[in-house]
Amino acid sequence: MEKVARYREYIQTLLNQYAADDFSNDEVEVQLIFDTERDHYQWMNVCRQEFNRIYRCIVHFDIKDGKIWLQQNLTDQNPADELVEMGVPKEDIVLGLQPPFKRQYTEYGTIRSYAAVSNNSGQQTGDCLG
Amino acid sequence: MEKVARYREYIQTLLNQYAADDFSNDEVEVQLIFDTERDHYQWMNVCRQEFNRIYRCIVHFDIKDGKIWLQQNLTDQNPADELVEMGVPKEDIVLGLQPPFKRQYTEYGTIRSYAAVSNNSGQQTGDCLG
Repeated sequence: MEKVARYREYIQTLLNQYAADDFSNDEVEVQLIFDTERDHYQWMNVCRQEFNRIYRCIVHFDIKDGKIWLQQNLTDQNPADELVEMGVPKEDIVLGLQPPFKRQYTEYGTIRSYAAVSNNSGQQTGDCLG
Repeated sequence: MEKVARYREYIQTLLNQYAADDFSNDEVEVQLIFDTERDHYQWMNVCRQEFNRIYRCIVHFDIKDGKIWLQQNLTDQNPADELVEMGVPKEDIVLGLQPPFKRQYTEYGTIRSYAAVSNNSGQQTGDCLG
């Protein structure tokens, strides 16, 4: 199977497992959001009551240029390690939620930004908030 | 065209328009996440740099039981009104981001919770945080 097709399967399998183990109560909707065309994958909790609201993405993966980006992780688990156990090479996983300068100190991919991927310059061209 | 199929088109058209007008700088990735199988639709901003991080869903729609739920809106616009202009009856739009007791005071749908939709009891059965 083509590499990216395998990665899509792994991510969906992992998020399905996480969501099945989600112990939120009945009022909290556990949402799995899989966009296999644009390659964005989320596990969310959504709930709105009189005085409480929960709206949070718990885990979010993207696939971009053959790499898996971990964009969000509110669990105490390590989804990147689980992908490695499934057969994804560490260099194909980018911890997108970590500051770019830290990525070189992990065993995972060291791509600095999506913009760097797109313009191939590897340079930071601006600022999130700028 | 079947009603829900039309609603799917309207939502994607609207989010595409919003995202095209997103004036974030080059470092911010504008993500459209469309899961047409589970009927979840998002427009997000994602950016991670050395000392800044942006991770936010700006607008989020769901379709459930023939109704459009607005789950998140960080814009200063009114996506519900725009859906009405496209031809969606107000009673088919639920302001999911509003507290349930407030929905009866809007012109939109008054379903109280997803749980109420599922078990048809109309009762609150628990608490988001409980």
